Amino acid sequence: MKNLVSMADLSVEEILDLLENAEKMKHGKYATQLQKQTFVANLFFEPSTRTKSSFEVAERRLGLDVIPFDVTTSSVQKGETLYDTVQTLSSIGVEAVVIRHTEDEYYKDLIGKISIPVINAGDGCGQHPTQCLLDLMTIKEEFGVFEGLNVAIIGDLRHSRVARSNVEILGKLGANILLAGPDEWKDSSLEGTYVTVDEAVEKADVVMLLRIQLERHEEDEDLRAYHEQYGLTIEREKNMKKGSIIMHPAPVNRGVEIADKLVECSRSRIFKQMENGVYIRMSVLARSLQMTERGMKYAIAH
Amino acid sequence: MKNLVSMADLSVEEILDLLENAEKMKHGKYATQLQKQTFVANLFFEPSTRTKSSFEVAERRLGLDVIPFDVTTSSVQKGETLYDTVQTLSSIGVEAVVIRHTEDEYYKDLIGKISIPVINAGDGCGQHPTQCLLDLMTIKEEFGVFEGLNVAIIGDLRHSRVARSNVEILGKLGANILLAGPDEWKDSSLEGTYVTVDEAVEKADVVMLLRIQLERHEEDEDLRAYHEQYGLTIEREKNMKKGSIIMHPAPVNRGVEIADKLVECSRSRIFKQMENGVYIRMSVLARSLQMTERGMKYAIAH
Amino acid sequence: MKNLVSMADLSVEEILDLLENAEKMKHGKYATQLQKQTFVANLFFEPSTRTKSSFEVAERRLGLDVIPFDVTTSSVQKGETLYDTVQTLSSIGVEAVVIRHTEDEYYKDLIGKISIPVINAGDGCGQHPTQCLLDLMTIKEEFGVFEGLNVAIIGDLRHSRVARSNVEILGKLGANILLAGPDEWKDSSLEGTYVTVDEAVEKADVVMLLRIQLERHEEDEDLRAYHEQYGLTIEREKNMKKGSIIMHPAPVNRGVEIADKLVECSRSRIFKQMENGVYIRMSVLARSLQMTERGMKYAIAH
Repeated sequence: MKNLVSMADLSVEEILDLLENAEKMKHGKYATQLQKQTFVANLFFEPSTRTKSSFEVAERRLGLDVIPFDVTTSSVQKGETLYDTVQTLSSIGVEAVVIRHTEDEYYKDLIGKISIPVINAGDGCGQHPTQCLLDLMTIKEEFGVFEGLNVAIIGDLRHSRVARSNVEILGKLGANILLAGPDEWKDSSLEGTYVTVDEAVEKADVVMLLRIQLERHEEDEDLRAYHEQYGLTIEREKNMKKGSIIMHPAPVNRGVEIADKLVECSRSRIFKQMENGVYIRMSVLARSLQMTERGMKYAIAH
Repeated sequence: MKNLVSMADLSVEEILDLLENAEKMKHGKYATQLQKQTFVANLFFEPSTRTKSSFEVAERRLGLDVIPFDVTTSSVQKGETLYDTVQTLSSIGVEAVVIRHTEDEYYKDLIGKISIPVINAGDGCGQHPTQCLLDLMTIKEEFGVFEGLNVAIIGDLRHSRVARSNVEILGKLGANILLAGPDEWKDSSLEGTYVTVDEAVEKADVVMLLRIQLERHEEDEDLRAYHEQYGLTIEREKNMKKGSIIMHPAPVNRGVEIADKLVECSRSRIFKQMENGVYIRMSVLARSLQMTERGMKYAIAH
Repeated sequence: MKNLVSMADLSVEEILDLLENAEKMKHGKYATQLQKQTFVANLFFEPSTRTKSSFEVAERRLGLDVIPFDVTTSSVQKGETLYDTVQTLSSIGVEAVVIRHTEDEYYKDLIGKISIPVINAGDGCGQHPTQCLLDLMTIKEEFGVFEGLNVAIIGDLRHSRVARSNVEILGKLGANILLAGPDEWKDSSLEGTYVTVDEAVEKADVVMLLRIQLERHEEDEDLRAYHEQYGLTIEREKNMKKGSIIMHPAPVNRGVEIADKLVECSRSRIFKQMENGVYIRMSVLARSLQMTERGMKYAIAH
């Protein structure tokens, strides 16, 4: 049984395996032939379209049966603990759970205590490993390698679920990390080089913009100021290197982290990231459910 | 790629084709043999049992895979635009969206900009084309033709999503339209003949009652008065012609637009309309997804 | 068409048949081969994880197609009656409904009026027949017979949906019923012998704890007092007979009805009850849909 709660669970080798399987899935090189009906459930304690839907599509592409779970009408409303909820699902035949939760490290109440794998779809300000993996997949698809790439990560470095994991893993994989953003959001524990936004954009092969929490900047004026100072403006994009790409974990605040018109420009891989997310989640689910050993196999070439 | 956002999208020929396919589906004359897993999503931004469930059944009868989408837990809560939500769903592999929205013409932000078809399941006070088509199917099933039929439309003509489309299309198809209801709800732009409720009921082959918005008539006294003045009472029904039928888009306010006991009387086609709605939606979905070209075929006769 | 709204609907023979089919399903002795796509819907007007998910898994294991129904976004919000909601679902092709409702005997508005079976998943303070059946299955699995067993039912006897049914049926099946709990929750209409909690625990083959409604005991102090006086404490469990078991309908208030550490002790059948619930619901659904006659058959032995 293989959980995935944090990128730290994975060796570099395992990461590369997950990416490779995801790529094979994307190119139709696996046939899903489950030998028995297999149930999974998605427990989302926070709003999410893209991550939840992405897991749903991934699950169904793998032939899994998804049991609906609606937090607002569940027994969680009666004060049931997460452990008891998951144990209940396990008792009725659910074989894996995907969880997004507002609380950091919610999974510590589960791992080692329950008998089905947990896949973390985001915890508080903590981890979001499938987002990190889909970022890696999108970069690998573009450049083939990570070694020597300049990856700029720009924005709210301190509160981002995504930033920390990406900095660590990309560093391990040989990329150079450039960091930029407002001083109050800098985080000295991240292993990268702080530069100005302009320098980051000019040097980067990959410009990764982080989502800002709009609740913190309610004035339109503040948002415009953020865009001018730290956002990827129309002007800054013109200074990007040939062949460099733009990424964002989405949902995008158009006109804030990135100019509206750049969201779908030719450099942007934002919707490509979403597309890749499905294959990454298929790959992660297949690993957790040991599907490759249990029934998935290479497809016969068409 | 074929959207369906308004009845105005359809020529008379296309309408008749959709009805014919729906009838074939009702009589089991199509076999669904999708060549590949096909995802759709239903985005309902307003409460609805019948329309949403009807699309769900239609989708599954066609063998489609429906990705759940819950507005209350989606990123729409984080301020994401409808365009970005639909683009996201498209990126993860959804091939068509069915949308009900509170805003008139919400689809103007989508059509021509996204690459998957949009099926409108109702916009504000605007269009509700599948409701209109299921009304047509129910009338055709009963009378075979539209030419020369007297169709009475009674009630809140001004605010009805359904009334305007039905008036236009039934007129084109050769029916005579009789209109009746409270003066404040009359709408001079509709092409029909205003008559009294009594005259409408007596002359009609089809009596279509429109739903009133209960929020506007909170006093029970007002509701009783409405029923007496404009509703299909037990007494009025006795004056209906032989062979004439009763229709209502539902949900019915029993005892308001129509006497409680008439909802399921032998003239009523109210639940038949719902049944037909499923086949209409199958027909519309098959058109939008070009399924007849892509895998559906006539069933071998049993 | 066979409804199941109350245990009183079932003869002892029918109960034993349902248990036997559930056991066969648990041991893989039925193959589901539905001859046609069959739709069901779950209408839950009260929060529930375990019952709703359990029905979902049961339905899918039987090969049924489950139409999502979300109370919060349904036309029930527009004031539609339960009858009209169910009639609508029936019109669009739903062949059975599972309903949980806050109102006692909500089903009286449905039975005899609609043409599809209703399975009661709990009504107000009334019936919850599948919970009762899964309790019976769990006891039968353990002891083989009911005759002569001492079954202790402890807690809020007056307000429990489960207690009354279990007392009646277990009595009919030959078990001796011991009742215990706070005086204010005793119910003189129940046919059993009132004893102290200590005596109940010592004599019982089966200790069934009832859930208390936390809303009524908001003070932690009260909860601790309840646990000491009426709960299954670590100390009391030591006095249980060899081979005796612990049951609870769940969700458990850990540390209140039962000591936290006992919830998953070797005597506990609490999660086993949940597991069995799926097979009971499969059995009940198969009966209501007359599936055994319509397509299910014994599986060929593996």
